[in-house]
Amino acid sequence: MTNLNETHDPALTSWVESANAPETDFPIQNLPYGVYRKAGSGGPGRVGVAIGDRILDVTAAAAEMSGAAKDAAGLCNGETLNELMAAGNGAWSALRAGLSRLLREGGPADAPRDALRGALTAQADAEMLVPANIGDFSDFWASLVHATNAGKINRPDNPLLPNYKHLPIAYHARSSSFGVSGTAVRRPEGQVKPPGADSPVFRPCARLDYEMELGLYVGPGNDIGSPIALDDAEKHLFGVCVLNDWSARDIQAWEYVPLGPFQGKNFANTISPWVVTMEALAPFRTPAYERAAGDPALMPYLASDANAAAGGIDVRLEVLMSSAKMRAAGTPPALIGASRFKDMYWTAAQLVAQHTASGCNLRPGDLLGSGTVSDEESFGSLLETSWAGSRTFTLPGGEERTFLEDGDEVIMRGYCEADGARRIGLGECRAEVLPS
Amino acid sequence: MTNLNETHDPALTSWVESANAPETDFPIQNLPYGVYRKAGSGGPGRVGVAIGDRILDVTAAAAEMSGAAKDAAGLCNGETLNELMAAGNGAWSALRAGLSRLLREGGPADAPRDALRGALTAQADAEMLVPANIGDFSDFWASLVHATNAGKINRPDNPLLPNYKHLPIAYHARSSSFGVSGTAVRRPEGQVKPPGADSPVFRPCARLDYEMELGLYVGPGNDIGSPIALDDAEKHLFGVCVLNDWSARDIQAWEYVPLGPFQGKNFANTISPWVVTMEALAPFRTPAYERAAGDPALMPYLASDANAAAGGIDVRLEVLMSSAKMRAAGTPPALIGASRFKDMYWTAAQLVAQHTASGCNLRPGDLLGSGTVSDEESFGSLLETSWAGSRTFTLPGGEERTFLEDGDEVIMRGYCEADGARRIGLGECRAEVLPS
Repeated sequence: MTNLNETHDPALTSWVESANAPETDFPIQNLPYGVYRKAGSGGPGRVGVAIGDRILDVTAAAAEMSGAAKDAAGLCNGETLNELMAAGNGAWSALRAGLSRLLREGGPADAPRDALRGALTAQADAEMLVPANIGDFSDFWASLVHATNAGKINRPDNPLLPNYKHLPIAYHARSSSFGVSGTAVRRPEGQVKPPGADSPVFRPCARLDYEMELGLYVGPGNDIGSPIALDDAEKHLFGVCVLNDWSARDIQAWEYVPLGPFQGKNFANTISPWVVTMEALAPFRTPAYERAAGDPALMPYLASDANAAAGGIDVRLEVLMSSAKMRAAGTPPALIGASRFKDMYWTAAQLVAQHTASGCNLRPGDLLGSGTVSDEESFGSLLETSWAGSRTFTLPGGEERTFLEDGDEVIMRGYCEADGARRIGLGECRAEVLPS
Repeated sequence: MTNLNETHDPALTSWVESANAPETDFPIQNLPYGVYRKAGSGGPGRVGVAIGDRILDVTAAAAEMSGAAKDAAGLCNGETLNELMAAGNGAWSALRAGLSRLLREGGPADAPRDALRGALTAQADAEMLVPANIGDFSDFWASLVHATNAGKINRPDNPLLPNYKHLPIAYHARSSSFGVSGTAVRRPEGQVKPPGADSPVFRPCARLDYEMELGLYVGPGNDIGSPIALDDAEKHLFGVCVLNDWSARDIQAWEYVPLGPFQGKNFANTISPWVVTMEALAPFRTPAYERAAGDPALMPYLASDANAAAGGIDVRLEVLMSSAKMRAAGTPPALIGASRFKDMYWTAAQLVAQHTASGCNLRPGDLLGSGTVSDEESFGSLLETSWAGSRTFTLPGGEERTFLEDGDEVIMRGYCEADGARRIGLGECRAEVLPS
């Protein structure tokens, strides 16, 4: 599945100088898409591509392109990425190549840099918007470590359910409540049944948690009744973001049997604003998770040589926290967890194949959540970090935590590194908890 | 909540004569909205209102209206009902009153009937479309009888879970796979674990089922973080339809612990095309379900005098089946189940209050499913009718069934009757099962 081309050359640099800084998430090898507007303008969103600390307006750049690249840029004149997402690999590659050529140092001598400079906005001056109409959001549970930990906490005698290693488990989740990084999240209220109590009570959530996930945006959809084969699955994926699937553990615990989480999840989801394309991720492909000797054999619809060889993606995710007190003291956020998407038990392609095996149709802009990304030693949720509230951890400055307090800010980041490749980043997914 | 006005007068008749037939679902007291186009035209959808066996184009009718009715009709010039749904009670009432006046016998002497006749289409010549952009679909489980039956089948020692009587339980469901009545449904494939088997197998669903539900369309939404109070809930409901929540019981049984149904539900939902407004349902309001003496007290956010007095709606639902053999023999469909929405344990308003109690935002056009509507003696699913496949039933002509066979057609209907009111119907929700 790995398909490198000139746009991935680690030697490329951009005339937008901030894109050449070693620590930037957005070098010219990345070129993620987002939807932005001038901060405070309240105007319509515009499709842009991140380059260093700037955003290039794709519609303005279209005037400097030709052929397939210009055609693809023409799909970006709305307020979302859905049309571009629907267009598929050919259009995506053409636009990426066109943008790469316009933005690179040493590009065509006639590159119209003055015009392009006028189409740049500083990210600091922009307000980012949810980049797509997300028709449906399906949240998977693809980390064996997380599923085992959640199982140990909820069912100590039977931590991993019998279906887990046979198919990627998921639930339908809520589309309406997406907010982009920076949107505060209000602590939900709901029914909870305190330990030992006879009856539930209605009160603010006392076990507010995050889940650090990778979000996968669907590209072209499939017709209802027509499953997507595993080896075609990646043609139906446009790109990725960082996703915080906020979770109210006490509300969820009371409601979730037998139909799954609902109120415990539907009050908010936060996403990073930039969509890093599957093409940008090509240098970071890895083999799929190596299943243990005793694990059940994969059924044919979930197995292929190509998936085994390169179905993984080495996206590294980190979650940090800062309390209101830490921010007042100027203390930087503290790292709470770090883990890698490549260690998930199921690959991105397997999630797509499973989702559509029933004949379910995906649509451009649908989002698939990976489920909490946890490693053996470092976790993507406080449910695991605090072991369901039984272990406190200490923030810089001495505050103790099990779950989130009002005023806490949760910051998730993602990035990719590999030998011979330029590091790229997914940007940030950040939100503060407001009181209920 | 009952608020009758001149549009409900059972003595009203229409100059569209088919609307005066006693058996029509669409007398002038109903006036449900839908989206249609000339069959086979492939053109854009238009908003229409059903009157007898005709459809009146609302945009064309707007030319004959004035004031608030004309303004509201102006919200109907797109391809969905979402703008009208968003507009709220005032607009809805004005448009209903305006359409009632234009269509009634004995209306204004200058009623421009020639112009209006030109804006009528025979329903037989129309193709109906999904009437709204359904942003999110949430499926509840509001029938105590159904929840108890499903519990007896799955957990004989513990049929009703402890949370059931404390809050309306729901799960997020799939929005992409809605089809309007008449759209065939392909039998899904998926992983199932046959009884006694050591491992699952991948195969066509062998326990394909329907669930007969009432669908509730959301009108104006709420801001994220701002719950809707119980007594405001009905202002946020636009109208209802008949909903078939297709269910693959064997796929669902293997996958649903712990995150709820996913592949067992996401392959199809079928809806009746007409949206019967909450205002049209006003003559059919009933008290809420009378909770038993030992049931837990309602928490304040789920309790009000108004809800207790008139939170129920007496919509009667019926499910019929015909096999391919029956249709070939000219045998009419057989009634399999009949039950009443007013007997649900939770009211429509309680579903809205629960859904938003966490701060979750609803959007115009969102659909809430009631969950399977079952009575003590007559069930809304084959899971119950066949008691999980343990009892066969016989169709006219002698064929036996537990679950659905290929070629079976499932037909659901809804209607309302009350003393002193004109009977109205919800129309039909019909679909044939295709082989996988």
